[in-house]
Amino acid sequence: MEPLHIVVCPDSFKGSLSASEVASAIAEGARDAAPGAVVTRLPMADGGEGTLDALLAVWGGAAHVTETVDAIGRPTSARWAMSPDGRTAVVELAEASGLPGVSDVPLQPLHASTRGTGDLARAALDAGVTELLVCLGGSASTDGGAGILTGLGARLLDTDGNQVPDGGEGLASVASLDLAGLHPRAREVRWRLAVDVTNPLVGEHGAAQVFGPQKGARDGEAEFLDGALRHWADLLERETGTAVAEVPGAGAAGGVPAGLIAVLGAEATPGAVLVADAVGLPAALEDADLVITGEGSFDSQSVNGKVADGVARLAAASPTRPPVVVLAGQVLLPEAQARAAGIAAAFSIAPGPVELDDLISRTAPRLRDLAAAVTSLVGASRG
Amino acid sequence: MEPLHIVVCPDSFKGSLSASEVASAIAEGARDAAPGAVVTRLPMADGGEGTLDALLAVWGGAAHVTETVDAIGRPTSARWAMSPDGRTAVVELAEASGLPGVSDVPLQPLHASTRGTGDLARAALDAGVTELLVCLGGSASTDGGAGILTGLGARLLDTDGNQVPDGGEGLASVASLDLAGLHPRAREVRWRLAVDVTNPLVGEHGAAQVFGPQKGARDGEAEFLDGALRHWADLLERETGTAVAEVPGAGAAGGVPAGLIAVLGAEATPGAVLVADAVGLPAALEDADLVITGEGSFDSQSVNGKVADGVARLAAASPTRPPVVVLAGQVLLPEAQARAAGIAAAFSIAPGPVELDDLISRTAPRLRDLAAAVTSLVGASRG
Repeated sequence: MEPLHIVVCPDSFKGSLSASEVASAIAEGARDAAPGAVVTRLPMADGGEGTLDALLAVWGGAAHVTETVDAIGRPTSARWAMSPDGRTAVVELAEASGLPGVSDVPLQPLHASTRGTGDLARAALDAGVTELLVCLGGSASTDGGAGILTGLGARLLDTDGNQVPDGGEGLASVASLDLAGLHPRAREVRWRLAVDVTNPLVGEHGAAQVFGPQKGARDGEAEFLDGALRHWADLLERETGTAVAEVPGAGAAGGVPAGLIAVLGAEATPGAVLVADAVGLPAALEDADLVITGEGSFDSQSVNGKVADGVARLAAASPTRPPVVVLAGQVLLPEAQARAAGIAAAFSIAPGPVELDDLISRTAPRLRDLAAAVTSLVGASRG
Repeated sequence: MEPLHIVVCPDSFKGSLSASEVASAIAEGARDAAPGAVVTRLPMADGGEGTLDALLAVWGGAAHVTETVDAIGRPTSARWAMSPDGRTAVVELAEASGLPGVSDVPLQPLHASTRGTGDLARAALDAGVTELLVCLGGSASTDGGAGILTGLGARLLDTDGNQVPDGGEGLASVASLDLAGLHPRAREVRWRLAVDVTNPLVGEHGAAQVFGPQKGARDGEAEFLDGALRHWADLLERETGTAVAEVPGAGAAGGVPAGLIAVLGAEATPGAVLVADAVGLPAALEDADLVITGEGSFDSQSVNGKVADGVARLAAASPTRPPVVVLAGQVLLPEAQARAAGIAAAFSIAPGPVELDDLISRTAPRLRDLAAAVTSLVGASRG
């Protein structure tokens, strides 16, 4: 009989193991039960925190490090990664422009900017990539993506022709957009944004009103920023012909998709799909007999744009239509809902009544055990 | 494609669900995932407590009830069961002769007897069965099976030709065995004893020394009973030609196998195998694609004569060699040991970190979920 082809493509178990560690434990278990199996390890991520590390684990090599500024303009250095073929770069917004980098000072919701992330993108363009993946979690700013455009060479000018200050507050006085200095390749490459919310740019569900407070907006500041983003959206539509104020997901990360969609033609993509493409999951699934993914908590979020969902969609589109199994710290999603989402089976690593700390400490060996059990069962079922 | 043939043959989850309830929950889950599947429910037992109920659940119909005596000779009524074809009866030693029936008075280790169980066996013989299954758990007595033989019409006589009193103490003075009044069919039928220990009849690992204390033997009584059993074994060998003192398992249930092996030609059998035969598991496995069993705790005992072990052995001998999956409250056996014992996969019903009481209260729905997941996975793996 043909050897079993097993694709191992888990997310991280937050607070326990990285996606790469989870994939290793599962792969070991699969080989325990089927020593002759062809096991492909593709650690995944959902486009949020950890995506850069997951891609580095698959792509191999070291992260690139670029000198830039943090969300409030202080010098810092930040990482990004490039695929082995040099075609694709991944930039994680939180690396240069995230809240953690400015947690040592009071929050500056009006002034925080994504300019540093623009510096990283420019470095990637200089390196020759033709595709940029931008992961949007953890931003400190509400600048509608203006900082990234500025980092790439665009200039936001006021009515006097002076450049407005970085940050959301500056958007309120921008009168025109000067793209003459934009990086020459910025509009030639493909931009894909990992978006995991559906909020529009403005209004009561928009970037400023919903996410502003957690970035420090108080006493009318969220309303002021909402007005600034609306003004920015109007200007973008006037300058580029693209209306972004109501686009689902444009309100992610302080409105970053708005500026990048309008000016750079960026596409908002579910993060898991973006990562799956970046690691080559669709090709790996082409002759798969079994797909094992996993995550800390398998719940209603999991089948709504997270890794398990992306994996299930790709597996369903694969010619062999391999069964997808989820191994999780906890399984909360009702079984029928999992099945409806294309997940053949979801199993918890809990071996019985157990406390959380104890379970976390046993994550790797239990993943190995479960992966062996699943592999053994699938192997035996093939007859 | 041929419909999936699934055999559901779990043990009970002690303290939670009966084997029949477990089987129903698993069967529901299997049908959730594979509505067209052929699902055969065969609740199992290991020959200990619950075996009678498990067989009644499979055989259908009501228990037979016979007027008899308890372990210390007080009138009582006790249940036994007969297969629909009238060929096989099952008698559970604890029903008439168990410790629970005499828990209202001080324990009488020297006088407790299995005579009541002999009455049940006689009733079954009168009903025409050709095979008697005797389940040996929970006895109150240490009488070497003499009570059962007495109930069937044998007489144990002292040197004066008087019948000795019931119980272990009487064995010390027995000088001859009068089988003239033995039920005429007692030596014609097949006797199978569900034995789950390997203790010999006598000595430091024997019935009296090991199990006597839990039946109330104190201050030299266990040693006295050990001597009485040794005397009984000598007499049995002299009268029947069969040596039983050192037979593994002869020390079960106060030495019941000793008397029944020597006088009736009984066979000691692992309880799970005996029950599997009684419910027709070997025939059901002939065209099975998947076997789902289960028990409260899947541990080293499970693959040592318990239900999961018996099921795995029979499945391995079936022409389709179907994978065997164990669903358990807790999975303690290392995965490699389970696989070596012929168990393809073992999964806990725990959905994540959970306390025992909470898990017990959710046993049935979790079994249903897991059975659906397993069925879905096996169905998908068949391609």
